[in-house]
Amino acid sequence: MKRKGILIVVSGFSGAGKGTLMKQLVRTYENYALSVSMTTRSPRPGEEEGKEYFFVSREEFEKKIEQDGLVEYALYCDNYYGTPREYVERQLEKGRDVILEIEIQGALKIKKKFPSAVLMFVMPPSIGELKKRLEGRGTESPEVISKRLKRAAEEAEGIEQYDYIVINDKLEECVLKMHTLILAAHDAPVRNKEFIENMKKELEALC
Amino acid sequence: MKRKGILIVVSGFSGAGKGTLMKQLVRTYENYALSVSMTTRSPRPGEEEGKEYFFVSREEFEKKIEQDGLVEYALYCDNYYGTPREYVERQLEKGRDVILEIEIQGALKIKKKFPSAVLMFVMPPSIGELKKRLEGRGTESPEVISKRLKRAAEEAEGIEQYDYIVINDKLEECVLKMHTLILAAHDAPVRNKEFIENMKKELEALC
Repeated sequence: MKRKGILIVVSGFSGAGKGTLMKQLVRTYENYALSVSMTTRSPRPGEEEGKEYFFVSREEFEKKIEQDGLVEYALYCDNYYGTPREYVERQLEKGRDVILEIEIQGALKIKKKFPSAVLMFVMPPSIGELKKRLEGRGTESPEVISKRLKRAAEEAEGIEQYDYIVINDKLEECVLKMHTLILAAHDAPVRNKEFIENMKKELEALC
Repeated sequence: MKRKGILIVVSGFSGAGKGTLMKQLVRTYENYALSVSMTTRSPRPGEEEGKEYFFVSREEFEKKIEQDGLVEYALYCDNYYGTPREYVERQLEKGRDVILEIEIQGALKIKKKFPSAVLMFVMPPSIGELKKRLEGRGTESPEVISKRLKRAAEEAEGIEQYDYIVINDKLEECVLKMHTLILAAHDAPVRNKEFIENMKKELEALC
C-alpha cells in the first residue's frame, strides 16, 4: 500500500502533557510534522512566535478565514485559534503525518471534514494525578484549576468519538504507544480507499 | 486500564492465508485463544475433529441454535457454520482475546452484537498473487477457482466496514502486524467504556 500522510489530532485535558508528548514524538520518529496553530491571544511568558503559536491580530486572523487559509478554527475564551492550511497540505503531500493539537470541538470538526484523520485523546493515568499536575505547575490559582477541571469534565463527554485513548504515564512509553497507534491507524480501510478501489477493479476484471 | 478480552474476527479471501496466520499468532503470543467453529459440512481429507472444526449433524447444530449456544451462525452453501458460545465467553472472562475466523456476513453480525469486536480483513499483497495462490494449491478445478474469485469480489464490497486491513506478504511480519493492530484496538474508547465512565464520575465529583 502506498503510504499517504494523515492528520493526527491530539486533544486531552489541560495538564495531561500533550505538548511534551507531541514534541517528543516528532523528535523521535522521522515521519511526523508538527503543525503550529495561529491565535489572536497574547503570548504567555516564554512562548515564542512560530513555536507554540503564530501570534496574529484579529484582523489578520479574519483575513485568513476569508481566504479559506485555515483547515479549522474556533473562538475560545474570546480568542481565535486555527490551523494554517498551507503547511498541513504541503506536509501531507510529502507523505508525512501531520500532528495537530486541537481541543475537542475543533477535533470533531476535523473528523467531519477529513474522515481519515486520527483522533487521539491524551489522559493522565488518573484524575487524582490530573489534579496534582494542574496544582503542581504552581502557576495557576485555585479558581483557574477548578475551571480547568470543569472544562475537563465537559471535554470528557466527547471521548467516545475519538479513535484512541492515550494514557500518559511514562513519557517514552507513551510516545512509542502513540507511534504504534498511528501506524495501526494507517491500516484502517478509511485510510486506504485507493488501494481498496484498485483491488476491487482488478478482481472484477478477473471474474 | 484493566485489560479485558475482546473478540477478534478474521475474514479474508480464500487463499489469503488466514488459517496459517491465526495459528501462528496464537502460537507466538500468549494472550490469544483460537475459537473453533462448528459445522454441518463433511470433513475434507486431513481435517481433524476439534481442530479445523467441530463436525456435527444438522440436528445437533439446530439444537445448539435453539439453546442459544452459538455466538453467531450462518448457512453457507447449504451447510451451517457457527461459533460455540461457551468457549468464547470462558476465554474472554479470563482476559484473553478470542480469535474467530468468520466470513463477511457473520463478521458484520458479530460487530452489531459486540460493538467492541475487532474486524480484520486479510488480503494477499495483490490480486495476481491471490489468483496464483488459489491455482498453486493444485487441489481445485478452474471452475472452483473462478467461483472463489467471484466470491472474493463479493466479499471485497464489505471491506470498508472492517477495522483493519492486513496484507499477508511475509508470515512473521504479518503475525507481528496483527498483534500490534490488536494491541492498538484495545486503546479505542469503545473497548474502555468502564474506564471512561469511572473517570467521568471522578471528574464530576471534583467539580
